[in-house]
Amino acid sequence: MTKQYDVVILGGGVAGGSLAHSLRRQKKTVAVVEDNLFGGTCPNRGCDPKKILLAGLEVTQLVDDMQGNGISGKVSVNWPDLMRHKRQYTNPISNATQNGLISDGIDTYHEHAHFNQDGLIEAGSDLLSGDKYVIATGQRPSILDIPGKELFKTSTDFLNLDQMPSDVTFIGGGYIGFELAGIAHAAGAKVHLIHHNDHPLKQFDQQLVSQAVDHLKKLGIDFHMDTDVKEVTQVGDQLVLSGDDFRLPTDMVFCTAGRTPNVDTIGLENVNVKTDKHGVVVNDYLQTSNPNIFAMGDVVSTKRPKLTPVAGFEAGYLAKYFNGSTDKIQFKSIPTIVFGQPALAQVGLPSSIATDESRYMLITNDMSAWYSYHRLNEPLAKAKVVIDRDTETVVGATVLSNHADYLINIFTLMIDQQMKISDFNKEILAYPTFASDVQYLI
Amino acid sequence: MTKQYDVVILGGGVAGGSLAHSLRRQKKTVAVVEDNLFGGTCPNRGCDPKKILLAGLEVTQLVDDMQGNGISGKVSVNWPDLMRHKRQYTNPISNATQNGLISDGIDTYHEHAHFNQDGLIEAGSDLLSGDKYVIATGQRPSILDIPGKELFKTSTDFLNLDQMPSDVTFIGGGYIGFELAGIAHAAGAKVHLIHHNDHPLKQFDQQLVSQAVDHLKKLGIDFHMDTDVKEVTQVGDQLVLSGDDFRLPTDMVFCTAGRTPNVDTIGLENVNVKTDKHGVVVNDYLQTSNPNIFAMGDVVSTKRPKLTPVAGFEAGYLAKYFNGSTDKIQFKSIPTIVFGQPALAQVGLPSSIATDESRYMLITNDMSAWYSYHRLNEPLAKAKVVIDRDTETVVGATVLSNHADYLINIFTLMIDQQMKISDFNKEILAYPTFASDVQYLI
Repeated sequence: MTKQYDVVILGGGVAGGSLAHSLRRQKKTVAVVEDNLFGGTCPNRGCDPKKILLAGLEVTQLVDDMQGNGISGKVSVNWPDLMRHKRQYTNPISNATQNGLISDGIDTYHEHAHFNQDGLIEAGSDLLSGDKYVIATGQRPSILDIPGKELFKTSTDFLNLDQMPSDVTFIGGGYIGFELAGIAHAAGAKVHLIHHNDHPLKQFDQQLVSQAVDHLKKLGIDFHMDTDVKEVTQVGDQLVLSGDDFRLPTDMVFCTAGRTPNVDTIGLENVNVKTDKHGVVVNDYLQTSNPNIFAMGDVVSTKRPKLTPVAGFEAGYLAKYFNGSTDKIQFKSIPTIVFGQPALAQVGLPSSIATDESRYMLITNDMSAWYSYHRLNEPLAKAKVVIDRDTETVVGATVLSNHADYLINIFTLMIDQQMKISDFNKEILAYPTFASDVQYLI
Repeated sequence: MTKQYDVVILGGGVAGGSLAHSLRRQKKTVAVVEDNLFGGTCPNRGCDPKKILLAGLEVTQLVDDMQGNGISGKVSVNWPDLMRHKRQYTNPISNATQNGLISDGIDTYHEHAHFNQDGLIEAGSDLLSGDKYVIATGQRPSILDIPGKELFKTSTDFLNLDQMPSDVTFIGGGYIGFELAGIAHAAGAKVHLIHHNDHPLKQFDQQLVSQAVDHLKKLGIDFHMDTDVKEVTQVGDQLVLSGDDFRLPTDMVFCTAGRTPNVDTIGLENVNVKTDKHGVVVNDYLQTSNPNIFAMGDVVSTKRPKLTPVAGFEAGYLAKYFNGSTDKIQFKSIPTIVFGQPALAQVGLPSSIATDESRYMLITNDMSAWYSYHRLNEPLAKAKVVIDRDTETVVGATVLSNHADYLINIFTLMIDQQMKISDFNKEILAYPTFASDVQYLI
């Protein structure tokens, strides 16, 4: 028997779950189909577990930095303990998320689903029909297509690793590679990071990326730039990565070379939904080429960063759209961050684009001698702020420091609220804090 | 010979220094007279050194909290090292501040100064005459007037203490007492905090204060509430504090019972400047009862919290006023914070005042199980947010957590910018961070 819903959502991640709850508040009937963990990438195998494991790096680095500056004694990451601490948080997520949906009156299906030739959703033995459908199936780690690729592990494996090997290698210098490399290094592993060209973290300010890389090199992380790995082989207990003039034996290899949208096994060919290599193509209403089918979250083909709060925002948009709103989706600034020590964060107009000096003023500061960074003996703290001369507002900012997230969130609010610098300087903020420093940065 | 200036400023602290530089940008002639350290309380013996020493508490507490949750090993505060780390920052401040003034063309006098009977400033052998005068002499620690009071030490002594004694006592449970008690406890001292009634930190939410006190008690700090110390005596190597039914032997006693405005030795009686017990009385233009004499910073009699950013704001106001602006001074929200583990911060309307339920909605959250606090295993994390039902904006917030300053600064911006909650919820903030949690608090 076919079950009929107002909206059927494929994918029970951040976007899918959030939209489902919102639609229930509108008294709509909703089904959510999820073939993996309810809650999706972010809380199960993404942002949240990553940042729990990052606590190991934060604590050990802080103790190292403060050694001789007021702190005696040494600490180390106990990986099994840290993993247990992570699992305490992540293990209940999927059930709790599913139960939350169910108790809100949402039908959940823990099945892999696809559109069949009649345009209905087949979820196991169930057939689901919706007035509207929403694709929110997210992405999965991409695997480099080379001989031996079955020996690769992924970020998902890393975030659930029982023991940290002595020597680990990450292939791909995007934000996932950088973040996991920092965590593994703090946990005591010898870490290699391989990148195919010499522009890792290409979407970030390259001058600050280069300073971050130099710093991580000093700490002992090995960077192998301009390196194409062409084969992985098992040699005894180790894996050997090889390429032209390159050979690296290592214990474990994580492929962190990007993510692939989950569009290939959900029957999109049956319902005329167009995709490209970045995901499902949508218009300004998140509507696909099939007018009854929408898409949101990481599965969407977009130049926007694919981030949890973006997915949440899109879910919020669709909830309003399905409730009658006819506005196009419009985004505020989207800050992006590579968590680590240091963290690298950016929002708004990058300084590399804001080169017209008659229009923009670029203020660059090395903050490492500033009070806030001296007190914790932070070795690296830089900020670049782009100011629009005409409006006298901040329009972009990049921050490299252990506390970059604090500053980037303040800058995000300043940009979105179009606060004039003179108005921000009238703010009285808790002193001394990273936020009160902002008045010296603009 | 009398030296003539546009403006003579008594006090080379945050307010005085800032105003002097601003006036120079207006091409005015300026003198700054300081009898102690240039830079004043904040960078020499206030906020900045305090928060450097607080790093000891932050690091040891973090390691303790994470023990068994991913971190192995123990650390301790090395007080002499920490003090050296502090002095590296504070020692150069006075000279650097004075040199900064001098190189900006400001005349500096390192003398105790007072208004003489002719209404001129006598600074050592110099006589200074100004078109306008500004009193910015700040405050000093109050000393409880009891027998043995010469045995008391002050916050200034604490912030320059070469060795941490085994057993230290603070008299006065205001924010200075709490902050220093936390620092001393982290440094390994047995700590007593004595307060004359049972409402310490009286300007803060008493429910959260009580929870903070309970937490600090569990960590081993001894609180002696409703206790009046009536005498201090030296007995051998120790001091003994005594009162009715109270006797406490201890190694060192810090009087943290408030601060006294520096108004008593600057000849105000010669120039008809009115004071009360809170300081120099001023009108809405920071003008004293003598129209040519102004006052700003901690020395002003006010119900506002006496804080560094308030002093800076007042200096900015006077710079504009002296440049022809005729606006009254108007303050944005003033956040206040007791730094510590946990820190307690508050801004805007307190929940104890916003009791009209038809007008205000109070949202109270225990955040300790939330992701951001789980990851660092923070034991105590609470927030109270007051929302105006009519305007749908945040009008007040109180936060108790190790990271209260981060949240309180976000709330301060929301209050001042009168951001509607629906607008804040459209913000995309770096995730997961304390700032992105705010959308769950409102």
